[in-house]
Order: sequence, then C-alpha cells, then structure tokens
Amino acid sequence: MQWPDPTPGPTDVVIRVKATSLCGTDAHIYHWDRWAHERIHPPRIIGHELCGEVVEIGADVTLVKKGDYVAAESHLTCGTCFQCRTGQAHVCRNYRILGVDRDGSFAEYVCLPQGVLWTTSREIPPEYACVQEPLGNAVDAALAEELTGRTVLITGCGPTGLFAVAVARTSGAATIIASDISAYRLDLAKQLGVDHVLNATTETADEMAHAIRDITSGEGVDASLEMSGNPAAFHQAFGAVKNGGRVTLFGIPTGPTTCDVANEVIFKGIRVYGITGRRLFSTWYRLAGLFKAGLNIKPVVTHTFPMADFAKGFDLITSGQCGKVVLFP
Amino acid sequence: MQWPDPTPGPTDVVIRVKATSLCGTDAHIYHWDRWAHERIHPPRIIGHELCGEVVEIGADVTLVKKGDYVAAESHLTCGTCFQCRTGQAHVCRNYRILGVDRDGSFAEYVCLPQGVLWTTSREIPPEYACVQEPLGNAVDAALAEELTGRTVLITGCGPTGLFAVAVARTSGAATIIASDISAYRLDLAKQLGVDHVLNATTETADEMAHAIRDITSGEGVDASLEMSGNPAAFHQAFGAVKNGGRVTLFGIPTGPTTCDVANEVIFKGIRVYGITGRRLFSTWYRLAGLFKAGLNIKPVVTHTFPMADFAKGFDLITSGQCGKVVLFP
Amino acid sequence: MQWPDPTPGPTDVVIRVKATSLCGTDAHIYHWDRWAHERIHPPRIIGHELCGEVVEIGADVTLVKKGDYVAAESHLTCGTCFQCRTGQAHVCRNYRILGVDRDGSFAEYVCLPQGVLWTTSREIPPEYACVQEPLGNAVDAALAEELTGRTVLITGCGPTGLFAVAVARTSGAATIIASDISAYRLDLAKQLGVDHVLNATTETADEMAHAIRDITSGEGVDASLEMSGNPAAFHQAFGAVKNGGRVTLFGIPTGPTTCDVANEVIFKGIRVYGITGRRLFSTWYRLAGLFKAGLNIKPVVTHTFPMADFAKGFDLITSGQCGKVVLFP
Amino acid sequence: MQWPDPTPGPTDVVIRVKATSLCGTDAHIYHWDRWAHERIHPPRIIGHELCGEVVEIGADVTLVKKGDYVAAESHLTCGTCFQCRTGQAHVCRNYRILGVDRDGSFAEYVCLPQGVLWTTSREIPPEYACVQEPLGNAVDAALAEELTGRTVLITGCGPTGLFAVAVARTSGAATIIASDISAYRLDLAKQLGVDHVLNATTETADEMAHAIRDITSGEGVDASLEMSGNPAAFHQAFGAVKNGGRVTLFGIPTGPTTCDVANEVIFKGIRVYGITGRRLFSTWYRLAGLFKAGLNIKPVVTHTFPMADFAKGFDLITSGQCGKVVLFP
Repeated sequence: MQWPDPTPGPTDVVIRVKATSLCGTDAHIYHWDRWAHERIHPPRIIGHELCGEVVEIGADVTLVKKGDYVAAESHLTCGTCFQCRTGQAHVCRNYRILGVDRDGSFAEYVCLPQGVLWTTSREIPPEYACVQEPLGNAVDAALAEELTGRTVLITGCGPTGLFAVAVARTSGAATIIASDISAYRLDLAKQLGVDHVLNATTETADEMAHAIRDITSGEGVDASLEMSGNPAAFHQAFGAVKNGGRVTLFGIPTGPTTCDVANEVIFKGIRVYGITGRRLFSTWYRLAGLFKAGLNIKPVVTHTFPMADFAKGFDLITSGQCGKVVLFP
Repeated sequence: MQWPDPTPGPTDVVIRVKATSLCGTDAHIYHWDRWAHERIHPPRIIGHELCGEVVEIGADVTLVKKGDYVAAESHLTCGTCFQCRTGQAHVCRNYRILGVDRDGSFAEYVCLPQGVLWTTSREIPPEYACVQEPLGNAVDAALAEELTGRTVLITGCGPTGLFAVAVARTSGAATIIASDISAYRLDLAKQLGVDHVLNATTETADEMAHAIRDITSGEGVDASLEMSGNPAAFHQAFGAVKNGGRVTLFGIPTGPTTCDVANEVIFKGIRVYGITGRRLFSTWYRLAGLFKAGLNIKPVVTHTFPMADFAKGFDLITSGQCGKVVLFP
Repeated sequence: MQWPDPTPGPTDVVIRVKATSLCGTDAHIYHWDRWAHERIHPPRIIGHELCGEVVEIGADVTLVKKGDYVAAESHLTCGTCFQCRTGQAHVCRNYRILGVDRDGSFAEYVCLPQGVLWTTSREIPPEYACVQEPLGNAVDAALAEELTGRTVLITGCGPTGLFAVAVARTSGAATIIASDISAYRLDLAKQLGVDHVLNATTETADEMAHAIRDITSGEGVDASLEMSGNPAAFHQAFGAVKNGGRVTLFGIPTGPTTCDVANEVIFKGIRVYGITGRRLFSTWYRLAGLFKAGLNIKPVVTHTFPMADFAKGFDLITSGQCGKVVLFP
Repeated sequence: MQWPDPTPGPTDVVIRVKATSLCGTDAHIYHWDRWAHERIHPPRIIGHELCGEVVEIGADVTLVKKGDYVAAESHLTCGTCFQCRTGQAHVCRNYRILGVDRDGSFAEYVCLPQGVLWTTSREIPPEYACVQEPLGNAVDAALAEELTGRTVLITGCGPTGLFAVAVARTSGAATIIASDISAYRLDLAKQLGVDHVLNATTETADEMAHAIRDITSGEGVDASLEMSGNPAAFHQAFGAVKNGGRVTLFGIPTGPTTCDVANEVIFKGIRVYGITGRRLFSTWYRLAGLFKAGLNIKPVVTHTFPMADFAKGFDLITSGQCGKVVLFP
C-alpha cells in the first residue's frame, strides 16, 4: 500500500527514517489482539522508536535544521494540563502516542512536531540511536533514585530490562543481579556485565531468594527494578529489597496482582516508583551523558533486518530468542 | 497481681507513668487473638504509648535527669544493623517493642533505656503527651512529602488517621478530604478542620470518586494517605491521586490486597511510601515543632479513664465510638 | 503620552489591568539610575506585577477565555534552552522581562502571550491578586525546603521578606524570627504573626545573635532566608543557621560580599539555595493552594493609589514607610 | 619516645596499625603552625587515617572481633546532640578528632571505641584501605547530588580532589574537567581518566572559562566541586556552573572569600553544599559499594614509606609533588 508523503505544518519536521525498532506495542498491533482492536483505528502506520535525518522543516521550526540526525520522543503531550505545566509532561493527562494515535515510523518518512525531536550525536549508529526511546524508560526506571555504589536486582531481561542493566552498570552500581525465565536473555545480561543471574525456569522462588540473601550478605538489595510484569517477579522484587530500600515498577502485568502490602511495603518502610514514559527532556539529556560515560547497549540489539522482513522480527519477538530487533527502511 | 518495681541499669531510667493510651496492638493482646497468642510470652505488662516523670536514673544516664517530663519511643533498636547505622533506625532489622517484647506502660512505673526517651514540653498535658508515639506515625505518613499548599485525601479516621488530619491542617494543606465508614469519626475529622468528608457507609465508591473529582476540579489529589488497612480505601486512595502524585500506605490490611498495578501505580507515574514507626529522632523533633506551630489534637483524645477502668477503654475501641482512649495510672 | 492599544497575535491575550504593584525594579527605572540607563530602551511602559481581566484573545488561544480573571508570570522564557526543556524555565538562559524588555502593566491594557497567564480565583481581590508575582518569589525562597515544624530566621522585611513570613506561618513553621532595620516593617511582620523580631538599628549583631541562640535553646535555626541583600544580614543568616541546616539567598547585594566560607558554609555542612524568579508553573499552583490554606497577606499591601498618583507610591518606597504599594489604572 | 600500649575499655578495641596516611592536618601539626599551637595539647600521637588489624577487644564489644581488618572514622561524635540524634552525626556539635583531641595512628597500636570502626574487605590492600577516611570526604563532595550522566568540574587536584575525580568516573559522569596549578597533579588526574585538564599556571582565568564553555557546548557544567580552597578556583567553580546547577564547597580557604552573590549564586538559581566529614556510616557503606563497582584510586597513592621516614613524607607534601603519602608502622 502506498501512502502520501507527509508535508510539514509550520512547526513540523519531515524525517527520513534511518532505523526503527520493534516494541511490544507493535507486536500487539501486528497480532491484532483485543487491545489493538479497541485502540487502533486503521489505516495507521505503526512504529514509534526511530532515528533519521531531517529532510524538510516547517516555516517556524527553530529547534532543528535540514540534515540534522534526530531521534524522537514518542509521547506528544498537550502542553496545557497540570502535569505539562509543572515539568511532569511524561505523565501528561492527554498525551497521544506516535504509531498508535498518529502515523509512525515503519515508513520511509515520518512527519513530527519539532518539540518531540532529539538531536543525537552522529557517533551513535542508527541501530542504537533508534532505541533511545525505550532506553529512556530504562534510565527512568533505574535512576528513580541513584544507583552509584548500590546493590540492585533487575527482574526481567527483555530489552528494557537489559537496558536497565546497562544503565546500572554505567552508573557505578556495586552489584547487579538479574533474573529471567530465559537462558538466552540471561546470557545477554551477562554480556552487559551483570554480576549474578537467576534463572526462574531452573531455580525455585525460594532458591533464588536464598541466593539473593547470600550475595547481599543477608541484607537484601538497595533497589529492585521490576521490568517483567510477571507476578512471581513482582514478589521477588519486593521480597529482595532491604528495609528502607526502593522498588521501581515498570513491567506491565496482564491483570490484577495480589500484594502482601503489610510485609512487602509497609513494614519494610520502602519507596515504590511507578515508571512510565521518559521525562521530557531531562531523561534525554541524561541519556546523552550516559553515552559519553561509556554506556554500552550493543549486546541488546541482537537482530537487524530490512523493513521488508518485518515479519521475521515479529516472529523473533514471539520466540523470545532476541533482544531488540531493528528494521532499516 | 503485684509486680516488682523496676530498678534501673547504668543507662536505664525509671519513669512514673502519668498517662498511657490504648493502641490497636493492646486490643489484640487484651482479646488474646491468634497474633497475640503467637507473639506474646506472659507474664507481660502491656502498653507502649506513655508519658511520665523521671524518678530514678542509672549511673551513666546523661540524656535526662530526675523530675524531667518525658514520653518514649516504643521501638528499642539494635544500633548495629545497616539501617541503624545509616540513620534509618525506624526500620531496624532487630527492634523490640515496648509492651510486647518487654514490660510496658500499663503500670505505675516503667524502666526504659535513656536512648528512647523524649523530653516533652510541660505545656502539653499528659493525655496529649502520651499519644506522641502514634502521632509520630501520623507525622511520617502525612509528611513523607511536604503537604504545604497541596490537596490531600486521608482514607481512615481512626486515631492515627485523625492525627494525620491535624498534621496536614497545621502543615498548610490546601484542601483535606477524609473518608471513613463511621459518622462518629468523620465528625471528629470535622472538628479537626477537614474540608470535606466522605462516608463509605452511605456513599458508593463511585459517588465518592466523583465527589473527589469535583472537589479537585477534575485533577485528583496531590497526596493520598491510606490509614485504614481497608481494601476499598486502598483503591480509593490510588484512584484519587493525580498522575505524578504520591500515596502513603500506613493502615495494615488483614490479608493480601489485590492491586491493579498498571493503572493504579505505573501509568500514573506515582510514588508510594510504606510507613512504619517514626524516624528516630527527627520525627520527634518535628513533632515538637508542630506543637509550637499550633497543632491541635484535642478532639482526637475522646475518653480518659483511671487505669482500673481499662476494660471500658477496650470496649470503646471495639465499638468504634471513640478516638484515642487514655488511662491514668 | 498616548499609546496605541495593543492588538493580539494568534496566541496573545489582551488584558484590562485591574491592579498593578510597584517593585524595586520599577523604582530603579523611575529614578533612572545607572542600571536603568543601561538596560531600558525608551519608550517603554514599565510594570510587571499585575492582575486584570481578559478582554480579547488571539485566534489560537486555548488557555484562557474572555472575561477570565488573570495574573501573569513576568518572565517570558525561550522554551528551547536546556533549562526550559528540563522543567527549570525559571532560570531560562534567554528570558525577557515584562516592563523591562517589552511593554508592561502601568497602563489600561497589556498584551501578553497566553503562556504566561495565571487564572486566579475571584475570591482574591485585585490588590492581592496583582502581587502574586513577588509572592511567588517568597514561596520559592521559603519553601526551597519544607518549613513545617521548623524554626526559621527571615532577614529583611521588605515586601518579599514579609510575604516569606506569611508563607512560613501558613506552612506550619514552629518559630519565626524576623530582622530588619525598620521598626515600621517589623511591625508589619508582627501583624503577620512572626514570633520574634530583631531590630538591627537598635540591637548589635552580637545581641541579635545571642537572642537567636536563646530563642532556639542554643541550637540555631533550621532555615535562614536572606531577603534583604544587606551584608550584615547575610552574616546574620549564616551565623544563625544550625549545622546541617539551610540558607536561602534571595536579596540582591549591591556589590561583592565577603564570606567566611569555611565557618559559614563548609564546617556547618549546610545547603545554600540561590532563588530567582518563580517555578513555572508549579510555584503558581502551590500559591493557589496556600491561599486555600489561609495565607494572609493583607498586612503587606499597605497602600493603594489611582494610577495617576504613581509618584506618591515611588516616594513611599524611597521612604521605606510602606509594604507593597498597589496602583489602580 | 616510648608510649604505654593502650588497653581497651569495655567498648574499646585495640588495633595494630598496618598503614596510616598523611593529611594536611598532620602537616600543620608537624610544622607546628599557629593553628596547631592553639589546638594541640602535647604530648599527642597524631594521625587519623588508618587501617589495621583488631588485636584486642573490650568485654562489651560486638561490632568487630579479633583478627578483623578495619579502618576508622576519625570523628568521635557525642551521640546526644540534635545532629547526632537525627542522622547527621557528620556535623555533630561536639565531635572530637582522632590524632588531634586524642591519640592517633602514627603508632604501632591505637585504641578506639568500636563505634568508629569500619570492617574492610581484605581485597583492598592496606595502602588503599587506610585512605578511606579522606576518600569518604570525596564521596560526599562528589555525590552531594548524583553525577551519573552529568558534566562536572573539579577545581583542585590534591589527594581529595583526585579521589573526587575517581568517584565521579565510577559514578558514570559524562565529562570530567579538572583544574589545578600543578602539572604533576593534573597528570595524576589524567591517569584517573579525567576528560579535560586546565592548568591555572599556564592558562588565564578567561582562557579556562572559555575552554569550559567550549567543552560544554556553551552550557556550563551541571556540577562544580571546589576542592582547593583557592579563591580563583572558587570563582572558576561558580562561573562554570550552569543555571540550576550545583556547587560543592570542600576546600578550606585560608581567609574570607569575596563572592559576587548576585551573579554567582542568586541569578543562577543554584544549590551550594558545604561538605565536611563523612556521613556516619552511609558514606562508608557507599564507599564499599564503589570499590565493588571498580573504583580505582591506585594512581592517587604515589608514595609509601616506613614510619621512620615520616619526614620524607612531610617534605613531599610541602613540595606538592605527590598524591597521597602512606606510612607503614
């Protein structure tokens, strides 16, 4: 199917897409599940993780110029709600999502308002520049409180969990423990420098809890990052954190979760952070700083394909035998 | 039954109890429920909320002197765990509780280590000085983040919830909404200056949610304090908080709670604080400052009895027709 | 002199000014001192503290509508610098000031971009609504860290210092000490509920330091707010703060200040905050909450005049025998 | 001169010193300058940076046991002041210093209360374990706010400044700029991985300011750490920091410093932290975590001598041609 090339409004920018990566959201749409059926109004170009080159700019554009190398924030925020007016646009009450509520990046060109663009260093190749959007999620999940010198448990080694491992490593975490059900993904975590891996397929919950106590000399971890959405991982995260520690919740459960609020939260005196989106644009600035500090995400991008082979990418996601999958238009 | 008068060790202090108040923990023990059966080893003098006068001090005591008017922190902390050594003794891993793990304050005299004593202004009468312990819980629950100029929902108007109302009012909260199932307790909340009350006995969850939206012009509250332990209140607290807001969890549920983690925590991008105990001793210092600022807790102390009438106090707690009940030895 | 009525661009708004107050900046311009000579390019309508009614809106305006009652942020920020893009627009690197860099509010009408407008409750009369801009400075100075239950010294009782007294009182400060050289202004501080006043004209620095120690039982204050720009007050602020406390610097010295960095800052282990402008728009939201909490600024607005009598207002400022002076166009 | 071997009280511990390092304080005493003349009451064994082995423990000691490998906090805090009781013992109002107020570590044995001991991993050789005390200063100076992904200027590359470079590097700082007057010390900074060095002997203040602007694309740094006490460096630190950034002050000036408070602090809207001592014991725990994260301080310890050659060490400090000097008893 052909699509008219986008033409920019006065503050819009047309980008030639150089790379775009697959997200779980895209997979939901590809498989046309119940959520997609209710949320997406076809025809729609999907895709919201991208980088590319500015090829045309509207008359009033000042933030970028032709030829710039950019990535994009995927949330188009309203600018007028309480959250937007108080520096919390990442939880804007009226935001729209690229590739869901408007046409996205699985295309040769995409047209975006200048306000969501992020000029990126050319030292970062396209297959890494395009994943900055989910990488920003990982930055906010990992650094809701600082990790320097801290012990951390990361439950779930999907792409964003793996990004969180990389961020924790670069931030000077003392000890990083990662858990998952997939030996393949735990191996990627090892390539990112994790100190200990726990395989929930071959170890019981008790065995893993025991291992965490051993690794932390009985103290528990300073921080747990729940990146999987899995109920067992949820309890592992809360069980492992020490009194006075913190838990970040990022992974989306598929339904309600049963929580022992007294023992898992209250008596521990912990702080819990719900993380969604990325802070506009402090997270993006920080991410640029992390790259300068040596952030290594190469092992996470496991597969690249020409755009035409997108089906291979979605199959890989279904198989779980991949990190991030990148397409080149 | 007679009890030998306590004699102090070198860093201990004997206090003549002037007033001691009833807590839910004492009621559990009084009714000898399953928890009490497993936890308490009789004979045991119960009671952990007190004030009194120093009548004898050990040889090495420097923090107080004979004649001082004191209240007491009820948690005896170990001083050597990670939490104690990093300014987080309120979540000490090895703490022992007055009136549970050692003899408490339902007595003429109590012997305590000097380190838990809190010298109190004589301007605060005994029936208010003795409740500083649970009042400190309310301070930490309310002020986990500042409330000045903020809108706040307080679910549960038991004594500690009512104390939280008083703390929020003194802290310059913009708007305070309180909910409970008891008209009696909501009336006490009104006496403390709450702006709006919601009665969960006469209003549905939807009606109350609608009322909160109306009161907050559709925004939701900046902070929810869950002080009841009730599952419906738990969901009310999370439902009411705005994106980017915070929830404090203090009320202890009787069992596991079902939580819609995605919609109640993650997509809202909120912070959740589990609160237990009181910060040693920053909360106590702050409480002294709050009294100077005009903190009014008088309506919360609804009943006082001579010690011999303790059964009347426990009956009142069972009935729910009371705020805080104070005994005079 | 006549001035053409402003006509709004697509995102601009025309406001009929209901009240506008005098600031030190206006006095500098009125007296055409060296700073004014270098900074101001006449012709220029001065004035940047205002409230009024929306009488006309541009085609794309969505934030306000005709008839709305509004005040205005006086800093027009660039929206594109690091500070603006990370929620710190109050320290925008390229901001322009109303009444300095573009025509201001000493006029019947003023035209402003919608983004700086703040819809205000009609319960706040114009003479108080127009001073929200400097009141916002006081909010940020006072609440750089929370004041609930804390002891605070406020050096300098000009209008913004007095506003800080009012904010501290509403925030539940335990004890407020205020110092100034003017008995008139210290009397205004008393009307705002300050606990202790120190008159630097009749008391020596040593006497005042001694008084602060007495008031705080030898501890020093938790927080010092330096609101005067006076070197003696600067040292009073640092001398009074306790180890581990905080100092806010808001008053602008007329020249370099000599500081004993070792004893005044380092060995005390304190935090110092430089405060300028107001957080856009979290401070404005918080201010609305403070008004709901009972913030009383009435004693600060000591004089009101018709616009034609502006010279009387500037004379009063020179005399120091006033709080805030408000003009009605 | 012979000294009686110390014998421990009930909560004291005797340590056989394995290594002890020289601090500027020791040099002041060695040269018997005015400060030393007034502060020190001979006879006194000096030295307060040490590690060693526990060889004897008092009857009530529980925190360590014979054979443990320990370092020591040098501040003996009172435990009863406001600061000590609120988790801020590092600014205790009554602390005493090892090697100044009681006998220190330039000896074969030192006797210390158990509360100041810090059990150290045997993986850290004595010449590095003994410098943990000043390293803790650097941790608090560097991490007063997190540095992950931030740009930082460190003015002053004495041993503690160099430690701060190492801490910043391990914490994932994006870009580290260091300035000093000594090419020797800037070379040590390079060995620690600093990105840019500025030599105040060969470059003017303007040239250095220009270089910082270039390195930071005109933005200025997120954080300045002033580690030298030098007035020119003080102004460099404030001049370099961006609007909304932070400055840490650690280096002790020899006299009053002239500060342009308006332009250096207020209009920039920055936060300034005075840093002294180390947080007991959160900084020590964090330091242990930093070592696990790969903290490399080897280049900072430039010289080691047998204790008898202490004069060579003090000569080196006078020359400035050294990092940290360690003595072995």
